[in-house]
Amino acid sequence: MASHEITLDFERADRIGFDEAIFCQGKTVEHLAHILEQARAKKARFLLTRLSAEQHAALPAADRQALDYEPVSRTAYLGAPLDPKGPARVAIVSAGTSDAFVSREVERTLRFSGHAATVVADVGVAGLHRLTGRIEEIRAHPVVVAVAGMDAALATVLGGLYGGALIAVPTSTGYGVAAGGTTALHAMLASCAPGVAVVNIDNGYGAACAAMRVLRGLS
Amino acid sequence: MASHEITLDFERADRIGFDEAIFCQGKTVEHLAHILEQARAKKARFLLTRLSAEQHAALPAADRQALDYEPVSRTAYLGAPLDPKGPARVAIVSAGTSDAFVSREVERTLRFSGHAATVVADVGVAGLHRLTGRIEEIRAHPVVVAVAGMDAALATVLGGLYGGALIAVPTSTGYGVAAGGTTALHAMLASCAPGVAVVNIDNGYGAACAAMRVLRGLS
Amino acid sequence: MASHEITLDFERADRIGFDEAIFCQGKTVEHLAHILEQARAKKARFLLTRLSAEQHAALPAADRQALDYEPVSRTAYLGAPLDPKGPARVAIVSAGTSDAFVSREVERTLRFSGHAATVVADVGVAGLHRLTGRIEEIRAHPVVVAVAGMDAALATVLGGLYGGALIAVPTSTGYGVAAGGTTALHAMLASCAPGVAVVNIDNGYGAACAAMRVLRGLS
Amino acid sequence: MASHEITLDFERADRIGFDEAIFCQGKTVEHLAHILEQARAKKARFLLTRLSAEQHAALPAADRQALDYEPVSRTAYLGAPLDPKGPARVAIVSAGTSDAFVSREVERTLRFSGHAATVVADVGVAGLHRLTGRIEEIRAHPVVVAVAGMDAALATVLGGLYGGALIAVPTSTGYGVAAGGTTALHAMLASCAPGVAVVNIDNGYGAACAAMRVLRGLS
Amino acid sequence: MASHEITLDFERADRIGFDEAIFCQGKTVEHLAHILEQARAKKARFLLTRLSAEQHAALPAADRQALDYEPVSRTAYLGAPLDPKGPARVAIVSAGTSDAFVSREVERTLRFSGHAATVVADVGVAGLHRLTGRIEEIRAHPVVVAVAGMDAALATVLGGLYGGALIAVPTSTGYGVAAGGTTALHAMLASCAPGVAVVNIDNGYGAACAAMRVLRGLS
Amino acid sequence: MASHEITLDFERADRIGFDEAIFCQGKTVEHLAHILEQARAKKARFLLTRLSAEQHAALPAADRQALDYEPVSRTAYLGAPLDPKGPARVAIVSAGTSDAFVSREVERTLRFSGHAATVVADVGVAGLHRLTGRIEEIRAHPVVVAVAGMDAALATVLGGLYGGALIAVPTSTGYGVAAGGTTALHAMLASCAPGVAVVNIDNGYGAACAAMRVLRGLS
Amino acid sequence: MASHEITLDFERADRIGFDEAIFCQGKTVEHLAHILEQARAKKARFLLTRLSAEQHAALPAADRQALDYEPVSRTAYLGAPLDPKGPARVAIVSAGTSDAFVSREVERTLRFSGHAATVVADVGVAGLHRLTGRIEEIRAHPVVVAVAGMDAALATVLGGLYGGALIAVPTSTGYGVAAGGTTALHAMLASCAPGVAVVNIDNGYGAACAAMRVLRGLS
Amino acid sequence: MASHEITLDFERADRIGFDEAIFCQGKTVEHLAHILEQARAKKARFLLTRLSAEQHAALPAADRQALDYEPVSRTAYLGAPLDPKGPARVAIVSAGTSDAFVSREVERTLRFSGHAATVVADVGVAGLHRLTGRIEEIRAHPVVVAVAGMDAALATVLGGLYGGALIAVPTSTGYGVAAGGTTALHAMLASCAPGVAVVNIDNGYGAACAAMRVLRGLS
Repeated sequence: MASHEITLDFERADRIGFDEAIFCQGKTVEHLAHILEQARAKKARFLLTRLSAEQHAALPAADRQALDYEPVSRTAYLGAPLDPKGPARVAIVSAGTSDAFVSREVERTLRFSGHAATVVADVGVAGLHRLTGRIEEIRAHPVVVAVAGMDAALATVLGGLYGGALIAVPTSTGYGVAAGGTTALHAMLASCAPGVAVVNIDNGYGAACAAMRVLRGLS
Repeated sequence: MASHEITLDFERADRIGFDEAIFCQGKTVEHLAHILEQARAKKARFLLTRLSAEQHAALPAADRQALDYEPVSRTAYLGAPLDPKGPARVAIVSAGTSDAFVSREVERTLRFSGHAATVVADVGVAGLHRLTGRIEEIRAHPVVVAVAGMDAALATVLGGLYGGALIAVPTSTGYGVAAGGTTALHAMLASCAPGVAVVNIDNGYGAACAAMRVLRGLS
Repeated sequence: MASHEITLDFERADRIGFDEAIFCQGKTVEHLAHILEQARAKKARFLLTRLSAEQHAALPAADRQALDYEPVSRTAYLGAPLDPKGPARVAIVSAGTSDAFVSREVERTLRFSGHAATVVADVGVAGLHRLTGRIEEIRAHPVVVAVAGMDAALATVLGGLYGGALIAVPTSTGYGVAAGGTTALHAMLASCAPGVAVVNIDNGYGAACAAMRVLRGLS
Repeated sequence: MASHEITLDFERADRIGFDEAIFCQGKTVEHLAHILEQARAKKARFLLTRLSAEQHAALPAADRQALDYEPVSRTAYLGAPLDPKGPARVAIVSAGTSDAFVSREVERTLRFSGHAATVVADVGVAGLHRLTGRIEEIRAHPVVVAVAGMDAALATVLGGLYGGALIAVPTSTGYGVAAGGTTALHAMLASCAPGVAVVNIDNGYGAACAAMRVLRGLS
Repeated sequence: MASHEITLDFERADRIGFDEAIFCQGKTVEHLAHILEQARAKKARFLLTRLSAEQHAALPAADRQALDYEPVSRTAYLGAPLDPKGPARVAIVSAGTSDAFVSREVERTLRFSGHAATVVADVGVAGLHRLTGRIEEIRAHPVVVAVAGMDAALATVLGGLYGGALIAVPTSTGYGVAAGGTTALHAMLASCAPGVAVVNIDNGYGAACAAMRVLRGLS
Repeated sequence: MASHEITLDFERADRIGFDEAIFCQGKTVEHLAHILEQARAKKARFLLTRLSAEQHAALPAADRQALDYEPVSRTAYLGAPLDPKGPARVAIVSAGTSDAFVSREVERTLRFSGHAATVVADVGVAGLHRLTGRIEEIRAHPVVVAVAGMDAALATVLGGLYGGALIAVPTSTGYGVAAGGTTALHAMLASCAPGVAVVNIDNGYGAACAAMRVLRGLS
Repeated sequence: MASHEITLDFERADRIGFDEAIFCQGKTVEHLAHILEQARAKKARFLLTRLSAEQHAALPAADRQALDYEPVSRTAYLGAPLDPKGPARVAIVSAGTSDAFVSREVERTLRFSGHAATVVADVGVAGLHRLTGRIEEIRAHPVVVAVAGMDAALATVLGGLYGGALIAVPTSTGYGVAAGGTTALHAMLASCAPGVAVVNIDNGYGAACAAMRVLRGLS
Repeated sequence: MASHEITLDFERADRIGFDEAIFCQGKTVEHLAHILEQARAKKARFLLTRLSAEQHAALPAADRQALDYEPVSRTAYLGAPLDPKGPARVAIVSAGTSDAFVSREVERTLRFSGHAATVVADVGVAGLHRLTGRIEEIRAHPVVVAVAGMDAALATVLGGLYGGALIAVPTSTGYGVAAGGTTALHAMLASCAPGVAVVNIDNGYGAACAAMRVLRGLS
């Protein structure tokens, strides 16, 4: 491994307010174990994203014990989450049960950095009353993360009812023209509600970071 | 023109209940004049679709006089519309003013075959109350044609509130990822409301024909 | 699971005439078992779609026994189908044997809601006599669902011979430029036969719902 | 122009049996005039393709007079066509009047090399009897060129009824998902009729060349 | 025009904090004049977006005089901008001169609602010192809108140096694989800097609305 | 299986000169066994295409014994091939060893119908002498099938050196922008050599059928 | 214009060896005149790329006189080209006359920086002898820029015959699947000849810069 | 195997300076063993690329022993690498740990032909100081290969700081719009830094060959 030594960006938090996370997809178990060894040597705290159950199971036992792993979101904590900084300022609003793998990643990323969140699940707009019945609760938060796949109509309806910062995450839920999440992504970008800001497909981690960027200015 | 004589499908109405329409896009003025001449010789009634203002203006004066032309929908009638067959059984519901070129084509196609329609315009779901305020009126029709561009969220919200036949027409309104109408098309196809049936982008004529296919079974 | 409680739309049937179905693709076995438990507690009837053989086999035995599962269509019934409401008013017309996984989903969805259907299989238009030989039988139905992959030419030929409501389902059958069903989808949308209405690729469930929307107006 | 002298492939006919044609799209009038001058100096015969009416009108008068120009197909002959070599061995079968700009290019390319062709126009399969009524006439030719846009279902139906060499040309006729001809191209490539061979969108010249390649083996 | 009366969403500001803007692309001059008449009757203030120079020139003189039109951004004000609410809290950072049509739209949209902005232009990262030389000035703002086309590398470099809310607008500047802005859009969405939130291609209006959503929580 | 009985097109050979082949991809083993049973009952001869090694191994032993299976091409014969009709009139020219799965399918399809073929493998044009060294041998055949993936430059070079019927098959060999075969497909369609006719990606069966269509006219 | 002052990167030559060029597409005439004024004030030399004939004609007379404009390549020189640095070390090899607008841009960019080039035009591989007849001349250069559209087979054949640095430029020449140059781009990237390096579609300027990067190491 | 004998291009090195490599993806183990047998019979040296761990493990023991296999890059050497020709003239600069499978392939390909390389890993520009801190070391090489996935912003920043030959390799690292590497590819092609030359996605072998083409002119 000598010629490919790993250079983590340990100063990122000072520069932009949150740590580098370890993106695990496509990394070999050897690489991951090497990174975890470096991080523990520096007593660094880290969030790991896209750590599959297979990768997690293949890690050395010492690494597995050091990690707090959650399989739906495929995230792990190395080190304890920061203490919560007060009441939830972010609401995570999702369309369906199949989107849980993303909304859980948003929630876990926020919590690791000490941000509580309110979760409003299963409020897809094909059953409109589910969303309108909870809109006042949602409006109490300065930031909303909207999670939806397929046609992603949730983002538009929410954008017309809610006036705070609105970050939309398309999910790869669905099949046919929906599969892969491109339709949800495009529908969110082309929303007829103004000011919806969008992150990459299934990128719950990125949506949480975008929320934390907004929260920085609030404090 | 001898070797490319035109073979119109004059028996289509007997077979499937509505006449062949003349699709004018991409046809030269010479071709159109030739078709109109044939049709008048047979005293045929015809709908012309996608007849641009430029094409219309370039037709011989006799042809122009024989046509009832409407520029927003780019449709023309050769011969009189059939008499209306009773109250409107189709509602045409559209998201925004920019979609008028399509919803007008739906209306004009239906009316040429003797079908009245109720027009409910400018009810895009970014301002949700506009749609919910008229939903009872819409529910009184056995068939709805929903016309929307951009993210096409109207189709999904309508599909969750209305239980009759729902035909959705994506429009090419918009820009960036919306332009061309592919996002609206895909969002309608991937709608989380069940049973939304979709036609080609900007195909108001096709949506009207689909509505008439449904109405056939009702009578 | 506390923070992600599931909110089923139990009132959908009242609103639009058919129940919410459970879309199983991408859901964990834990989620599915949780949903089935809720549903049985409410004595709800449910259709499950895209329930893979692997998911089905992994369910608790009590859940498996409660379900009537059909593997080709990947559908399951929780609760008994409604009694048939009379003779078949829908014909399901499919191009090839490889399309059976979709046409069977159409049939099973209709039957769960009490609608009989006539199945006309293997009538792809490369052997034209197979379709023309059965066209009179097909014409006796007010609604046809056409199922085809690859070039989907069946939809166009049928659209020229049949004048009732015509709902087309593209399938992902094929390879090369056909694979995924996009070519079939686009060919159906661009059909030169007027009034063909299209649903998402492989969406037999959606086609059946579209048919039931039409049938609502007939009764 | 010295550093960009033009190198025509004057020996192509000896090698593969037909001359290089001059593809005019994207060439400046200066380039075209320069080529025509070279060709006339060598007393070469040439077919010009995709010569727009604007380009043609802007050529020097001497060039215009030397050319036999046909505007629908946008082709021009420099020099006389070869004498016909006997009865038509190619049938050009097209779906609609809007495809004439391509089928005419097929016909003109064949005729310049001395091949007569039978033209069967306006036989799109949405009105099936138009094609079946002429199928025996078509079967008398060893080569058929099928020209269709939109869903291109003509190619498949023809492929199931006719057993000789079948060359399909997709056209860019249509709009929405059809526009550009990609849907027609893909539908022809994914045809469920076996052995349909396809050329580029709107490539009537190429289809005629493919036909002449086949005819070479027949003589 | 009776059957297509226009229904503006005059209560949007109460609901989400900013007015509906009039999206002018694709609207006829008659539609625009009709909207302006309605708005003036209600003494409404309005922003008009994507009003081309051709559309503007074709408006009735009274409408033209009522509007404050800026051609680069293609925006117009009906009514006066709100008074500025204090020092600039938004920085608009753009990569090149060719992106001015978008960054100007951001600026004009913000200013109409009473928000000042700092403009930092021509700091594309192919000349890195241009950006690093101004990074402290940029960091003084809680919100940054980054405007870039082609490879959009500006968004990533900025995302690594700046920790506040970061809204990225891809532009359609460029040609080949860049043209249309899809590459810039995708690069921003796939940025290796965390928390970049993205709006539609060329959507300066949307980026300004996203910034105002953030600012709402700050006040 | 009652409601989905299989309708084979047993008369296809009479109509277009070659039998329907059984396309096995996506069919269950039950379906395949059912088809084989029907075919044997009628003593029908059949070619099976895209029969994977897994499908083949899962067939009942009696079916496996009745079949002559070749794993590279994934083809099987039910019944004996026809006797060869004379010397090879088709040359199969392929670019690389990785294309063997397609060129073998061409060869096996031809042979089943009694057509011998000359195989010229590994003559990709990155090593030009490999092709030019065998061009005279190739020219002795009235039909050439060219098989290539990646950039498919073989088709163009061959098209400039050979004047007979040229059928090109793109293969899915490669990775990155080549994977899936779309680049090879498009390069063949956009070939600067005139008259190259193309079939679907990896469609060796279709190319063989296209060749047999040509050969029909020769006999 | 005050708030959008232009920040040219005047030190680029010191950093990477060649000056910033002014990319004119999408810039208004006012912007261009403003840039030229700045440049002349600093006595800067500049290359202008993608300066359309319309833009050039609309510049103030003083600007037009200061520029050496060439319309095919759409390039202009502000200031004199550097003196040639010796014999040509770059060969520009192009497939067809229609590619001249790109190969000329390569040549003009090189010459402005003092690099002579050898132009080898019209050697597309559909007429293979045109290229093989000049291959020794081409081999005498350490760098080759290959310019081709459509199927771009030239790049592969050249890559198999020539062992020096090979930079390929796809052009947008063609129609159908070729139009826009994506097919040429993908074919060059997927070339079966190793080590072909590719730039954006129609990017003659970029290819020249890539060549100059190589030449830097040689001197 | 008789009819598909393998024709290796053993003279390639003489013609263009490096040997044909064996592309193993998609080849059966039988084919690979056959090739290795031929090669050893001729005492040929060979590089094998894209040899998966599964393929390697399935080779006959004698073949496995003859190969020097490296699993991250999936490359193997048959025969010893050439002796290094002096100090490293190529720097391999990569953005992240996940790109190692490509940068290692670049390094192994160069080393097999006797070229040393300097590896600069983990310098993605979201942490800009990592790159700027090593830029002088990078500048000491006449050729740089830049390896990056996702938004590939590394290529542009590097292109603005380094003036030698710059070859960029997009990687398929990432997910959502990044997955597959198309976004990285397009961003590199549309780079606002001039003269970046690009190879296919994940094509480390091709980038090394491009570097060797440049180095040929230097010696």
